Amino acid sequence: MTSSVRMSIAETIAIGSELLLGGRSDSNSLFLADALAAIGVEVRFKTIVGDDQSDIAGVLTAACRRAGIVIMTGGLGPTVDDCTREAVASATGFRLARRKEAFESMRARLAQWGRTPNRGQLRQALIPSRATVLPNPVGSAPGFALTWRNAHVFALPGVPSEMQAMMQKSVIPFLVNQLDRLKQAPSHPITRVIFHTCGVPESDVNTKLQGLIGKRAPVALGLLASPTGVLVSLTTRAHRSINEAVLRSLAEGVRARLKEWVYAEGQDTLEEVVGRLLQRQKLTVAVAESCTGGLIGYRLTQVPGSSAYVDRGALCYSNQAKTDMLGVSAHLIEQHGAVSEEVAAAMAKGMRERSGASVALSVTGIAGPGGATETKPVGLVYIGLDGGGDDVRTKEFRFHGDRSLIRQRAAQAALDVLRRWLIDKAGT
Amino acid sequence: MTSSVRMSIAETIAIGSELLLGGRSDSNSLFLADALAAIGVEVRFKTIVGDDQSDIAGVLTAACRRAGIVIMTGGLGPTVDDCTREAVASATGFRLARRKEAFESMRARLAQWGRTPNRGQLRQALIPSRATVLPNPVGSAPGFALTWRNAHVFALPGVPSEMQAMMQKSVIPFLVNQLDRLKQAPSHPITRVIFHTCGVPESDVNTKLQGLIGKRAPVALGLLASPTGVLVSLTTRAHRSINEAVLRSLAEGVRARLKEWVYAEGQDTLEEVVGRLLQRQKLTVAVAESCTGGLIGYRLTQVPGSSAYVDRGALCYSNQAKTDMLGVSAHLIEQHGAVSEEVAAAMAKGMRERSGASVALSVTGIAGPGGATETKPVGLVYIGLDGGGDDVRTKEFRFHGDRSLIRQRAAQAALDVLRRWLIDKAGT
Repeated sequence: MTSSVRMSIAETIAIGSELLLGGRSDSNSLFLADALAAIGVEVRFKTIVGDDQSDIAGVLTAACRRAGIVIMTGGLGPTVDDCTREAVASATGFRLARRKEAFESMRARLAQWGRTPNRGQLRQALIPSRATVLPNPVGSAPGFALTWRNAHVFALPGVPSEMQAMMQKSVIPFLVNQLDRLKQAPSHPITRVIFHTCGVPESDVNTKLQGLIGKRAPVALGLLASPTGVLVSLTTRAHRSINEAVLRSLAEGVRARLKEWVYAEGQDTLEEVVGRLLQRQKLTVAVAESCTGGLIGYRLTQVPGSSAYVDRGALCYSNQAKTDMLGVSAHLIEQHGAVSEEVAAAMAKGMRERSGASVALSVTGIAGPGGATETKPVGLVYIGLDGGGDDVRTKEFRFHGDRSLIRQRAAQAALDVLRRWLIDKAGT
Repeated sequence: MTSSVRMSIAETIAIGSELLLGGRSDSNSLFLADALAAIGVEVRFKTIVGDDQSDIAGVLTAACRRAGIVIMTGGLGPTVDDCTREAVASATGFRLARRKEAFESMRARLAQWGRTPNRGQLRQALIPSRATVLPNPVGSAPGFALTWRNAHVFALPGVPSEMQAMMQKSVIPFLVNQLDRLKQAPSHPITRVIFHTCGVPESDVNTKLQGLIGKRAPVALGLLASPTGVLVSLTTRAHRSINEAVLRSLAEGVRARLKEWVYAEGQDTLEEVVGRLLQRQKLTVAVAESCTGGLIGYRLTQVPGSSAYVDRGALCYSNQAKTDMLGVSAHLIEQHGAVSEEVAAAMAKGMRERSGASVALSVTGIAGPGGATETKPVGLVYIGLDGGGDDVRTKEFRFHGDRSLIRQRAAQAALDVLRRWLIDKAGT
């Protein structure tokens, strides 16, 4: 590998035994991938390893074989299980010693908080010889950078705010400088266009996109199915000077083939798209949730500034709550069941009338594992929408999966019903 | 490394370019770690790699150096970017050929769904020579198993339900058989005890636990800070026949030192703990949420069977909604502001009275980025609880972080306020 190719390949190493268990969303990856892509570096490998010195040393050695840039996060704290420093020293042979600049900046930071370094924190000033100390502008743990076996290795804290600040202040400027020296300036940023779809299975997305991209096109197509939809990506392959126009025209092709199934592009979320549509039309929304239990309201209010268009929500889990909060008649519930088209419509109607919001969205369904009947299986969900006047509509869904998946899919489908209604309304 | 040590170390390889971007919760890891731990195998390395044949081949080669068991997930689908089959063939030199048993079972599965294999699906019957086909009891993509360089390699689909079914039906029985042949039967399962804490910073947890575990104890202590608290783990180190009593007594030590900060153990969540406390005391709960936007209701109703004790919730984002839904007087809001102790108390009181629930929980706060005033910064949150009679209490919090973190921390704190109240009530 030439050094310019090596320098376009990055590996991230996340350190922490609990990370091996999974079940958590890894928020650092997205930031690292984006920050590096912007300077033409592609994260091609991600490794997760526990707090074991020899395992970390082995992983670092393997990473330096396949990547020119290695970013380690975590294991720099003051606690007993933090051993990234020792692992780097043992892999590289660069001995640890207390570094004055690391100690002084840590002491200054702790002094601001009215504290003095304790024994654990003193360990944080240990830095491998030949490494450069990277100051931590946000927290107390310093990081470090070193070059070993032709790879640039960075050790950063795992705390997102500290890692991000150090990437921006130290790592990215250093790498830009290195890339310039390799005469890659201006570097070719890797461009990725992402489309989010919902309501269409992965195999159908694949069929719709077949033949769009020729074998020799400098663009790779990716599909990823998730509980709430299929993500489609177009990525320019690293270090070919490609024509931006090719990517733009392929992106147009994706839009033309997938049409209204695409609800957002890039980092946009469905709730942000819905929020913008509401705001543009100066409308407000209220939600009445049964089986989703508050998830739709939570997602809508996740968007900063959503208080401008989110009026209120009702989590009406019990039948009594549906009657008290939304005026759904007990007779209607008895006649059709709480999970029915009729009750979904009455919930939306009741919510719109009581709140005075421009549009009300409702969900009632069976998330399971209990609650199913002979005619109403787990996964049966009705979504209602009242847009004012006589504009009351309902839609039936049958979702697969466990309780959590069914609730996620129901919330996604409800927000998509609202999105499509808002688009129609804007068009008329 | 002896083969019995190698056979106790596993690496998982997740394949998919979109997985490199992160931002998603990796649900397969938890399942794999648990299923393997139960037979005495520890996942020590996790690698994520894109849909690139040569990258996957390189990752597989590195994994077989450090682990005796390698489990690959993903890249077995019918779409253009699925290339795990080709990567395994190129790394091992075992050529791909269409395997009759793989083709037949796939054809049978598709026939059930009224379909015939398309061109992409035909590729799914390509299996490396010397590999054993692993039937997929849930989906159409077959997996395979092979032994290479002294490592047992398994290629499974990335879809959780398919991966799980194949682990249980094929991989685990095969590994148990192999471990038996290595005369490790009965194998020593790795035992991990997990404690979840909230409301106490990581450095304080570390201080409280200092000196608990001797250097030579066959148990490792781990700490992991997350937005909602610090997770503490005790793990028996692999393949030492340790005294269960040692682990039990250390677990007792953790409980004694961290006391009421521990809200749950193992896989339990705070909402499950709260749900059990409510159910045991035959109480019902109602929630009134402003800044958390429905998150508390969503979490409470995430628990199967929660309809037995969750009565209702109000997402009262606007001031008008606080008045309409909870009877909070406009005068009170004007006097103290919507984010105040007084309004938090009035919200809880109004919700309890209107719903008739045994206890009502309320949250009002400034999640940011907007909405702060000179005296009320972003992160200021009031939690209220009305337990009936004159038992109305409030608590003030100042949370750090962005909008999303503040909302998560507020919901966690509110559920913890409820948990502590329920414990007190049970004790009196």
